[in-house]
Amino acid sequence: VTLDDGADLASVLHATRPEAAERMLGGTEETTTGLLRLRALHEEGRLRCPILAVNEARTERVFNDRFGTGQSTLDGILRATNLLLAGRTFVVLGYGNTGRGVAQRARGAGASVVVCEIDPVAALEARMEGFEVLPALRAAERGDVFVTVTGGRGVLRREHFERMKDGAVLANAGHFDVELDLDALRGLATGGVRRVRPLVEQYDLGGRRLNLLAGGRVVNLAAAEGHPAAVMDVSFAVHALAAEELVVHPRELGPGVHPVPARLDREVARLKLASLGVEIDELTAEQERYLTSWG
Amino acid sequence: VTLDDGADLASVLHATRPEAAERMLGGTEETTTGLLRLRALHEEGRLRCPILAVNEARTERVFNDRFGTGQSTLDGILRATNLLLAGRTFVVLGYGNTGRGVAQRARGAGASVVVCEIDPVAALEARMEGFEVLPALRAAERGDVFVTVTGGRGVLRREHFERMKDGAVLANAGHFDVELDLDALRGLATGGVRRVRPLVEQYDLGGRRLNLLAGGRVVNLAAAEGHPAAVMDVSFAVHALAAEELVVHPRELGPGVHPVPARLDREVARLKLASLGVEIDELTAEQERYLTSWG
Amino acid sequence: VTLDDGADLASVLHATRPEAAERMLGGTEETTTGLLRLRALHEEGRLRCPILAVNEARTERVFNDRFGTGQSTLDGILRATNLLLAGRTFVVLGYGNTGRGVAQRARGAGASVVVCEIDPVAALEARMEGFEVLPALRAAERGDVFVTVTGGRGVLRREHFERMKDGAVLANAGHFDVELDLDALRGLATGGVRRVRPLVEQYDLGGRRLNLLAGGRVVNLAAAEGHPAAVMDVSFAVHALAAEELVVHPRELGPGVHPVPARLDREVARLKLASLGVEIDELTAEQERYLTSWG
Amino acid sequence: VTLDDGADLASVLHATRPEAAERMLGGTEETTTGLLRLRALHEEGRLRCPILAVNEARTERVFNDRFGTGQSTLDGILRATNLLLAGRTFVVLGYGNTGRGVAQRARGAGASVVVCEIDPVAALEARMEGFEVLPALRAAERGDVFVTVTGGRGVLRREHFERMKDGAVLANAGHFDVELDLDALRGLATGGVRRVRPLVEQYDLGGRRLNLLAGGRVVNLAAAEGHPAAVMDVSFAVHALAAEELVVHPRELGPGVHPVPARLDREVARLKLASLGVEIDELTAEQERYLTSWG
Repeated sequence: VTLDDGADLASVLHATRPEAAERMLGGTEETTTGLLRLRALHEEGRLRCPILAVNEARTERVFNDRFGTGQSTLDGILRATNLLLAGRTFVVLGYGNTGRGVAQRARGAGASVVVCEIDPVAALEARMEGFEVLPALRAAERGDVFVTVTGGRGVLRREHFERMKDGAVLANAGHFDVELDLDALRGLATGGVRRVRPLVEQYDLGGRRLNLLAGGRVVNLAAAEGHPAAVMDVSFAVHALAAEELVVHPRELGPGVHPVPARLDREVARLKLASLGVEIDELTAEQERYLTSWG
Repeated sequence: VTLDDGADLASVLHATRPEAAERMLGGTEETTTGLLRLRALHEEGRLRCPILAVNEARTERVFNDRFGTGQSTLDGILRATNLLLAGRTFVVLGYGNTGRGVAQRARGAGASVVVCEIDPVAALEARMEGFEVLPALRAAERGDVFVTVTGGRGVLRREHFERMKDGAVLANAGHFDVELDLDALRGLATGGVRRVRPLVEQYDLGGRRLNLLAGGRVVNLAAAEGHPAAVMDVSFAVHALAAEELVVHPRELGPGVHPVPARLDREVARLKLASLGVEIDELTAEQERYLTSWG
Repeated sequence: VTLDDGADLASVLHATRPEAAERMLGGTEETTTGLLRLRALHEEGRLRCPILAVNEARTERVFNDRFGTGQSTLDGILRATNLLLAGRTFVVLGYGNTGRGVAQRARGAGASVVVCEIDPVAALEARMEGFEVLPALRAAERGDVFVTVTGGRGVLRREHFERMKDGAVLANAGHFDVELDLDALRGLATGGVRRVRPLVEQYDLGGRRLNLLAGGRVVNLAAAEGHPAAVMDVSFAVHALAAEELVVHPRELGPGVHPVPARLDREVARLKLASLGVEIDELTAEQERYLTSWG
Repeated sequence: VTLDDGADLASVLHATRPEAAERMLGGTEETTTGLLRLRALHEEGRLRCPILAVNEARTERVFNDRFGTGQSTLDGILRATNLLLAGRTFVVLGYGNTGRGVAQRARGAGASVVVCEIDPVAALEARMEGFEVLPALRAAERGDVFVTVTGGRGVLRREHFERMKDGAVLANAGHFDVELDLDALRGLATGGVRRVRPLVEQYDLGGRRLNLLAGGRVVNLAAAEGHPAAVMDVSFAVHALAAEELVVHPRELGPGVHPVPARLDREVARLKLASLGVEIDELTAEQERYLTSWG
């Protein structure tokens, strides 16, 4: 069994020793990116064993994306800048699971939050949660702090930088450092670039200054400490139970990327609640009958 | 094509004139309950046409369950009681889509919210959102207002009523009036029952008085006006586009309950955003390439 | 002793029988307006007895203005319109105690809240709480719902109505119905006025329609039930203790408007907490020494 | 003119060279503590010049206490511990201006917040804001994180430490390090004390471990960077305008502690709004007449 983060282990194994991959009971995978790679491998007909998608387990999603990255992204921004967030306009680009977490925490810190999205369903949900939703070009004029968290590239680029206010702060909380178009930013910095705090580079666009955090790398890792232990323990618990599942019920799943069984998710949640000292109810026998008796 | 709410039309048609059902292009269904019935029919091999599950469309879920019922449940409680919610302990039993909406709005009204759940994943999510999570028996001692929204039955029953404080308010926002065990409540009311406001019956449990709203019927319909028009228009838009889909692409789907195509969901969201005056971005050609080029 | 709401009783008494006012132990007054009148009377040297300013007691302020009017204003708007507040832009004109309550509850209902103010300190506070702060003319273009709560007049007038969106809702939560300039509104309604719901008049401004609630009268009284009992009991408790104070310690205060003694405020809060079942701590002897020993 | 923080300069001057103090135009004072000292000096008849109470200016209160300390206290706790706040029970002891800020931010970070108070009016306000209010002994059993912010001493002491859960975190955001009774904590630590992170000392109470942050010193200064620049600039602006006032209108105020004139407060707010790019309205001539014409 392999426990992977980014599918590096599984990729190498399949590339170099496919016969060993064939003999494996399976693996687990932590990241969206890793799952993309593994699914591509499977579509080419080359994946030889089952992979359980830890990244898509419900507990993992909630903790890792929404609460973990939500808190630590703000933590990274504060450690890098010591900026007062109350009273600022905070622009979140991307309203997926992670973007939601960042938007929620920014509002909780007193900021006025603007969301930018390309998916109308996500945009509508953001609006219904009371956030202002704007095209990025208009948000560019309004924002004091910008956080990209889309998974895409070139989210903030020349045309946005040109409209931003003096003093705006740029951070990335997506997986890679391509969400901010740094080449464009450098090209605009006719007044030069200087480091004003350990993790803050100030780009002088001929009078207006834009502050880039941590070189555009993932700000919660680069400027804070990444996820708190209370987030990682959930991830590891899902990995551990998923690995056990592959061993205890060997060869039940064919090659491919499979969801973590819901019962494991519930078990992780049950353990976590116990660690938080939270007790919950169980269905009575009569209630269980009622819920299963429809027909 | 049938547009159904509760599967009544489809049920009757399949029961009485299956050959007519056979000739239909399909139908749409609004409710969870209706989908349960249609899926049961399909499992018995008796469903003759495709049904699009409007109820499970993302836009529908967000508007109908979370925002629609969330607001109108509180509205019903206020119209029935004129109770000040700030400073009260508000207990939400059930943290599904609707329960989330109710809990969020109750907090927004200044109440201190307690959530009761039987599913550990939902319970954990509630706790992570900052709600207090308690077993119902302990919540019973603390609550000023109780709202059941589980879809189950007997959620609040004798053992809970016996622990409640004088003056507690009982309301149901689930589909049926079986979530509160009214027989048990009547049995405990040794001091009698009297109507204290048009929609409030006060049960006297020998000194402690419990206030039942709208006879335990769904409080947002029975005491307020149900969903606002801005919720219903989303439902109707999904129905309309789903019906059009069945007509424009006839016989593409076999008999069974099918999801509403994601592209229709996006179209509804796009139209709704336009009606709210909200504009959003589109992917650039380069971004689209980046997102689809992984491999 | 007189217990007054609007200083009507005290005014008549002083105007018609000043010698009787002279013999009074004093009075209490519930409203800002009443206090204005009494202070004016005192400045003219005509006030003959002490008045305790119930309106300015801390408990009264918190309950009456912030929580009472906050909740009931939204309640009035919902009963009048059944509008979904989530996703709307809700404009609060005036960020005094009451405006804060309305803004807080509107945000809690999922609206995106814009505040308009003329006092820079209040405007800054609103901004720091994460609200968007705009001049009324720009808010006029953005808002879906407008609530005036300034205590002034002509807050929304011709120039604002001319910029509003089709379907905008106008409500007043200030003391008098002069905050909305209804003459101007009528003058603009070239398309006529019609009642579209019992408490909603729709003004047709040649295509754009503005919806006036309750004829511009205070919306929480005109469209809902005014303050909940849990707000009024605090007011009455302050009145009762203030009246008792005037009787038990007669003639200690001279003619004039005096604050309610802080100890009465604390007593009301203590009783209210007890009624809510909330217990709090007391200082230890050592802590009391520490706090009073500075010098 | 003296600009003071803690009244150190004014104290020394009055003690050693009262005749110089006599010749001064006055001074300004930043802290509550300093004002206590100066008022005591004045009561002894020894204060020789006017002091403007910067600390009590409205802008200063809002920024410094509520928003500044609110954010930086949480920032200090996160930097010291990297704890996930969502899902935790966060106990705030003291609900003055600063306590409110801390409670608001802790809730905004996803924690479930409990408030402890001795003043019934403040306790009631906390409850009405939706916080749970408990006596400290009961909060001790429930809390995951404790922050003292009372200005008193011995707020958390032996009896509280004895009831706390394993892993509880103790921090102080009040002025002095006497709010946590460290002698009692040491006395209970039969299992020893060890440093587990740079600013975290873990006290082993025979199995249960309590984590003390920054040795009980003010956590926002000791573990983070104190107030953001956007808070300090408000303080300094109030000092500067107050000092100017003393120079431009010399000898208008007698010896004593005086409030900063409201017009200076408004000027600071006006400048701050401008720096945030926020515009507001002014009264029309007609509105001004209306507001001043009562009589």
